[in-house]
Amino acid sequence: MSNFLEKLNVPDDVRKLSRPELEQAAGELRSFIIRSVSKTGGHLSSNLGTVELTLALHYVFNTPHDRIIWDVGHQSYPHKILTGRREGMAHLRQEGGISGFPKRSESEYDAFGTAHSSTSISAALGMAVASRNLQIERQHIAVIGDGSMTAGMAYEALNNAGVTPGINLLVILNDNDMSISPPVGALNKYLARLLSGTLYQEARSVGKAVLGQFPAPVMEMARKVKGHAKGILGSATWFEEFGFNYVGPIDGHDLDALVPTLQNLRQMGGLQFLHVVTKKGQGYKLAEADPILYHGPGKFDPEVGIQKPSKPGKQTFTQVFGHWLCDMASQDEKLVGITPAMREGSGMVEFEKRFPARYFDVGIAEQHSVTFAAGIACEGLKPVLAIYSTFLQRGYDQLIHDVALQNLDVTFALDRAGLVGADGATHAGNYDIAFLRCIPNMVVAVPSDENEARLLLNTCYHYKGPASVRYPRGAGVGASVSDTLDPVTLGKGLVRREGTRLAILAFGPLLHAALPVAEKLNATLVDMRFVKPIDAELIKQLAASHEVFVTLEEGSVMGGAGSAVAEFMSAFGLCKPILQLGLPDRFIDHGDQAALLKSVGLDSDGIEAAIHARFKSVLNIT
Amino acid sequence: MSNFLEKLNVPDDVRKLSRPELEQAAGELRSFIIRSVSKTGGHLSSNLGTVELTLALHYVFNTPHDRIIWDVGHQSYPHKILTGRREGMAHLRQEGGISGFPKRSESEYDAFGTAHSSTSISAALGMAVASRNLQIERQHIAVIGDGSMTAGMAYEALNNAGVTPGINLLVILNDNDMSISPPVGALNKYLARLLSGTLYQEARSVGKAVLGQFPAPVMEMARKVKGHAKGILGSATWFEEFGFNYVGPIDGHDLDALVPTLQNLRQMGGLQFLHVVTKKGQGYKLAEADPILYHGPGKFDPEVGIQKPSKPGKQTFTQVFGHWLCDMASQDEKLVGITPAMREGSGMVEFEKRFPARYFDVGIAEQHSVTFAAGIACEGLKPVLAIYSTFLQRGYDQLIHDVALQNLDVTFALDRAGLVGADGATHAGNYDIAFLRCIPNMVVAVPSDENEARLLLNTCYHYKGPASVRYPRGAGVGASVSDTLDPVTLGKGLVRREGTRLAILAFGPLLHAALPVAEKLNATLVDMRFVKPIDAELIKQLAASHEVFVTLEEGSVMGGAGSAVAEFMSAFGLCKPILQLGLPDRFIDHGDQAALLKSVGLDSDGIEAAIHARFKSVLNIT
Repeated sequence: MSNFLEKLNVPDDVRKLSRPELEQAAGELRSFIIRSVSKTGGHLSSNLGTVELTLALHYVFNTPHDRIIWDVGHQSYPHKILTGRREGMAHLRQEGGISGFPKRSESEYDAFGTAHSSTSISAALGMAVASRNLQIERQHIAVIGDGSMTAGMAYEALNNAGVTPGINLLVILNDNDMSISPPVGALNKYLARLLSGTLYQEARSVGKAVLGQFPAPVMEMARKVKGHAKGILGSATWFEEFGFNYVGPIDGHDLDALVPTLQNLRQMGGLQFLHVVTKKGQGYKLAEADPILYHGPGKFDPEVGIQKPSKPGKQTFTQVFGHWLCDMASQDEKLVGITPAMREGSGMVEFEKRFPARYFDVGIAEQHSVTFAAGIACEGLKPVLAIYSTFLQRGYDQLIHDVALQNLDVTFALDRAGLVGADGATHAGNYDIAFLRCIPNMVVAVPSDENEARLLLNTCYHYKGPASVRYPRGAGVGASVSDTLDPVTLGKGLVRREGTRLAILAFGPLLHAALPVAEKLNATLVDMRFVKPIDAELIKQLAASHEVFVTLEEGSVMGGAGSAVAEFMSAFGLCKPILQLGLPDRFIDHGDQAALLKSVGLDSDGIEAAIHARFKSVLNIT
Repeated sequence: MSNFLEKLNVPDDVRKLSRPELEQAAGELRSFIIRSVSKTGGHLSSNLGTVELTLALHYVFNTPHDRIIWDVGHQSYPHKILTGRREGMAHLRQEGGISGFPKRSESEYDAFGTAHSSTSISAALGMAVASRNLQIERQHIAVIGDGSMTAGMAYEALNNAGVTPGINLLVILNDNDMSISPPVGALNKYLARLLSGTLYQEARSVGKAVLGQFPAPVMEMARKVKGHAKGILGSATWFEEFGFNYVGPIDGHDLDALVPTLQNLRQMGGLQFLHVVTKKGQGYKLAEADPILYHGPGKFDPEVGIQKPSKPGKQTFTQVFGHWLCDMASQDEKLVGITPAMREGSGMVEFEKRFPARYFDVGIAEQHSVTFAAGIACEGLKPVLAIYSTFLQRGYDQLIHDVALQNLDVTFALDRAGLVGADGATHAGNYDIAFLRCIPNMVVAVPSDENEARLLLNTCYHYKGPASVRYPRGAGVGASVSDTLDPVTLGKGLVRREGTRLAILAFGPLLHAALPVAEKLNATLVDMRFVKPIDAELIKQLAASHEVFVTLEEGSVMGGAGSAVAEFMSAFGLCKPILQLGLPDRFIDHGDQAALLKSVGLDSDGIEAAIHARFKSVLNIT
């Protein structure tokens, strides 16, 4: 039975299937995904939810000529499997293997690279106007989840699309009532009301027979008549107000509903909005029961499901933050915690439980989250915004214009700073040091281990202005974390080792990679703790007693902490050779975090080699 | 008669007025604004539109205890005048004078600093949850235009507010059917349909009598009954779907409608949405007739209105861009032009006229604009996104994740780079060099004059990847602009003067301030043209033949072009004293552009003085 899927190498193969075969393919595809992800880790729940939708889309549309854009893209495994990458799934998210997200350079079927939320409608609209202007007959399809729909960007795109004439744009709302964290927001409530409409309930009970026999427009008309008569759906949905023809909701696991509906929508063209209801984890009971647990699992045995590790591993930086947040909230009732839809990823589950009135999940809404925090700070409370480094890029203007310019007391806890491993370039937090340190009033702190993370969170929290603490994905060296809530001195580094001639200034966890190198070369090693304000006095002192400098950071060399050191040297009229080590000026693909760091020379060997290469003659290294 | 306004120094004075006196105050306030803005320049149309609304708000609400947040804030002059800053209006937007936008440090009545669009609901929501948690009885009011409502941020805030319990939040939609450029988008069409509802028409004709006699809830009930019966407004507005109680539309110039409605809304508390219709330029015929012309005029005679200058002044960089765009579009039919609601400000009026199918105003939607451009580029057209430097901060993630990461061929024309003068710190484009150059694949070009702007636009347009050209507000030295569409060599600087010992590397128009200094000191002077890729070869050569370096840019020193030079010196193992001149690490208030540059040492005298201070002994300057 499982030989069937193996014949489907490109969507043309799918399009040759009979409808019953399509059904069989769905079953095999689902099993394949469970087996495959259980071996590699990756996203599971979301991909089990899009099996039938993916098959139906490739069945009905002429891909790759027609463009499908998968919003976020963590639901694109079925698509990858059906577009020549079934074998590649064995090396999913591994160095040299295929990406966990759609990627233009990987396949012509990946019309647009995604990973951050809510970009799909904008990109599809851009493609649609291009096709219009180039007079190419083509369909453009954005598949977007209900969570992604809460981001402002999706709204901006809908608003723009609704008045753009002469284009083919099909937005498919994949409504599974779940973003990574449970959904929040008024839109979600609204969608729930749409789903509770009698017609959808009736259609479900009447089942495939009806849905299969009548083409979508008939269904649609029925919906409108019923909706109007009963006053339940109102005279028009939100999406119709925006100029789209709204069709749905239909069952996204029912090929007999999906295929004819999509065929009709294809034929109609223009601005179409299809509301599809799917279930995350569909077809795998364990994932259906706990889609959050199965959102992005590591390896597991599909028969027994995800097991709690028998002994807990090292504490992650995320956990350090979560504990700190609860501890500080216990002491200071002014603290409030904010997350843009990343409760689990940011370590705020416990905080929400213990301090529900002080916990704010604002939805996938990074722009809003920052200004919301600013508003809270205006009234004397102390917001802590937990946000991934890569997602703060979405709130950059708000950080500058609403927080820093008004010097408001907001603490930014930046998780996933630096390379993030399996998620790859789209999620890398490589630029925060550069884009934050140029902003007046900002404090930028870079803890080197778990305990330092706590100390610097204390410090930034007590600082009366905008301050950020950046820490990497996963665990550090495993430093034991004290329970103090006291700050350290702002803008002061910590000399970890005194040596001669060479001074290594480390910004963040790479300090530990530099330790053996410093021993070997008898170098001075400093945990700088802060990129801004930088410890200018210490740099002065070191310049007076050392010949050459190395700076070290897990962030872009361009504009990074090393540049801050060079700037202060220049400002003081000091002139010392500096070797700036950090991330190179290119996007770095997915892979194992440690292996990736090694590949860019940021492990102990690499650091030592770089110092040799640059300062061999100065230091008389043999 | 005009003595009346002079008694209104704080809102408490307004609250003591009788209703007829309020009417009189409105008339005087309007006249005062016309006179005042005609003398100082500033925003006019928007402020004439909010005279009655401002009076009514301060009359009804207990400011500053209650919080009013003016979205964008270019409609806040009536508010400024009524909150102790009437005299200050004589020095509006001038150095040391009051700001053209609300500013927390200026007045306790300015609850939140604004200037960029669409932040008000987020900030008001933050304040509202803070008041709730602090158990303070307070009202929080966001006044937002229909243009600002198109930005995703406003939607994110509405979505979040709609499910936040226990808060007082009043959103006032100031619907004047105009952002700076004519409004675009589906929301605007929707609002127009709301306005066309029969009740609003009837209410207008029945007039003050009815509106004055019945309190707002009665009106509201009537609206709902009528709306339902006639099926015009549907069963619920968009805003009600989001959890707000929608009231309106009401006439925003009618105090007899505004005051009782606001009184009722105040009493009701909770989540309220008031739809107010105003007219930009209201009460000044010339501005009513052409609100765009009178959006942000310079000085003018109120009797005769704005006159076209008898002889045209120097060409601005914006105009250079506008001409270039048309010329390049004529030659290359793949070019498309995109603006996020800044047709006039970005110099695209002519382009729209000549190439309507290739012109895209996407609304106030910076995030969307960037990814929309990315989508277009995927299909082989060549998008040029014209955007102010300060507003690109809103599309930063999209630039990284959707454009640069996929190495898509999008040209960014960054207007208003560097200090912007009267608009002040909120609009300053000081950070773009720092936040762009750290992104892989990006080209960052910095023209020194008008002709260079054209040459570098050519170059970036022909470059097959993401590229940006940054140019300042206003005119440059007045270089005559060639009509070439040919590129210059990417990443190569231009030696403008050969000297000895000292090399000055200029990035952008400050080159011209450095010219006399270079003459005087017999220094080498380079127009670097590109921050990225930087002319590394040239730097090497110069390092071999010069003792000391000066870098010069109208941008943040932190992470800026000077740092790029220092990084490359480090990377080459070169060690030369560098004096990095640019904008200091603080927000710089409004004022005259040239005076501001002088104040931070970026005029010829300042540059010379800085070189003296740093290199006097090295260069033996006397």
